[in-house]
Amino acid sequence: MDKSFRESLFNHAKEWVLEAGAYIRNNINEPLTIDTKSNPNDLVTTMDKETEQYFSTKIKKTYPNHFILSEEGFGDDLSSLDGIVWILDPIDGTMNFVHQKRNFAISLGIYQDGIGEIGFIYDVMSDVLYSAKKGEGAYKNDVKLGPVNENVALEDAILVLNHFWLTKNRLVDEHVMQDLVKRVRGTRTYGSAALEFAYVAEGIIDGYLSMRLAPWDIGAGIILLKEVGGRTTTIDGNSVQLLEKNSIFACSPKLGEKIVEEYIKKGKK
Amino acid sequence: MDKSFRESLFNHAKEWVLEAGAYIRNNINEPLTIDTKSNPNDLVTTMDKETEQYFSTKIKKTYPNHFILSEEGFGDDLSSLDGIVWILDPIDGTMNFVHQKRNFAISLGIYQDGIGEIGFIYDVMSDVLYSAKKGEGAYKNDVKLGPVNENVALEDAILVLNHFWLTKNRLVDEHVMQDLVKRVRGTRTYGSAALEFAYVAEGIIDGYLSMRLAPWDIGAGIILLKEVGGRTTTIDGNSVQLLEKNSIFACSPKLGEKIVEEYIKKGKK
Repeated sequence: MDKSFRESLFNHAKEWVLEAGAYIRNNINEPLTIDTKSNPNDLVTTMDKETEQYFSTKIKKTYPNHFILSEEGFGDDLSSLDGIVWILDPIDGTMNFVHQKRNFAISLGIYQDGIGEIGFIYDVMSDVLYSAKKGEGAYKNDVKLGPVNENVALEDAILVLNHFWLTKNRLVDEHVMQDLVKRVRGTRTYGSAALEFAYVAEGIIDGYLSMRLAPWDIGAGIILLKEVGGRTTTIDGNSVQLLEKNSIFACSPKLGEKIVEEYIKKGKK
Repeated sequence: MDKSFRESLFNHAKEWVLEAGAYIRNNINEPLTIDTKSNPNDLVTTMDKETEQYFSTKIKKTYPNHFILSEEGFGDDLSSLDGIVWILDPIDGTMNFVHQKRNFAISLGIYQDGIGEIGFIYDVMSDVLYSAKKGEGAYKNDVKLGPVNENVALEDAILVLNHFWLTKNRLVDEHVMQDLVKRVRGTRTYGSAALEFAYVAEGIIDGYLSMRLAPWDIGAGIILLKEVGGRTTTIDGNSVQLLEKNSIFACSPKLGEKIVEEYIKKGKK
């Protein structure tokens, strides 16, 4: 992508992200209409839908040839990442949105022919915008994020992972994950994949493991993390397929490799 | 305690909490000197010590007859809660303080003859002050907190608990806790007991389980939670002994009782 086009795309997208975020923030105390999607814990609200529709309208009007890959049904039905694709989660961390009225994010990644060009993760209630442009670094608001720490020992690492990793699951023997949890310095769970990616990119978390994430959960995070030297793979260290659901491991490269070799591969089902 | 004395004590304590917090916030990017205490994951910094010393000096000068129960050694060696006791954790969530430079709190509870009178939990970096006075309710900054939701179903609850609960431990059979985690809507881990108490009081979390907490981790939280109708017990539903370390379960009463009866008692060792 041409740099000046990337710049103008970035500016448009940033304006829409901030505008959608302000709308959500200003209406956070309005009564919610909540549906449950595939299961009772997979919530969706009218705010999710409205926000996605807002983006969809803006994008289709300004960039009629671009595609949208998104959660709530206002996007396109894509079978490839050819062209320019906006990968959007209007509210990532809907359970937090519903129960906490904070700790959720707008996640937007823009790809050209499968290459990540622009990423935004907007912590709406804290008004903190993480952003990245390919080859130009990642930012938290106006502050450039440093490279991820290349030399974190397992014993000093803080990992984010859901508690389900430590219960019987279809991916990895839970006892191996229990050993990992006992080995590291600490574990956290925040409930928004986009924010958890952003925290790894910011360096306040050393690694993030998730069992199953959709493209819109990770589209922005992958780009952000790459700009600070982090890596995103499946939990066994393989490439992520952006059109599918994947297990996800976002981490600094050396630590990630160590955890894959010493733990995950041991317990992989 | 006489209401007007409680009021003046509250105002002094509040001033000191905010002042100490501002000092920490203004120095958050200074290099840290970190010791490890009883084990490598139990961190303590010079900032912990300085902050405690600041409180200790203020309290001893203004209230020479009061006692201090605190983490870093500038308090008194107490064998009872007779008289007025300030229970202080200068930085609760030291791991977050060190690794994240946020998500930590000043925790201060003031007790008279073992009765909680005043509580403060100050989220320093967010500049959010949770406070409570006995019989006068709990506040988040200037907003009064509502009573905890009395009728949360297990299936709709979000619990905070450390991942260690799901590994072999000395308190409860890990399989029972794994079943609990699968039953509830969601689980979170934030890494600051004081903030986790505050979140239960605020109603953004429905229950908080911890294996072992010291008086200064819970001294403020108990008071805050009581003011919104919540209960703090050991994990098997018994009374907390404030001079000792306890397992802790902070929750709305009905949900707490249900979890104790249906899960914890089943797996109790």
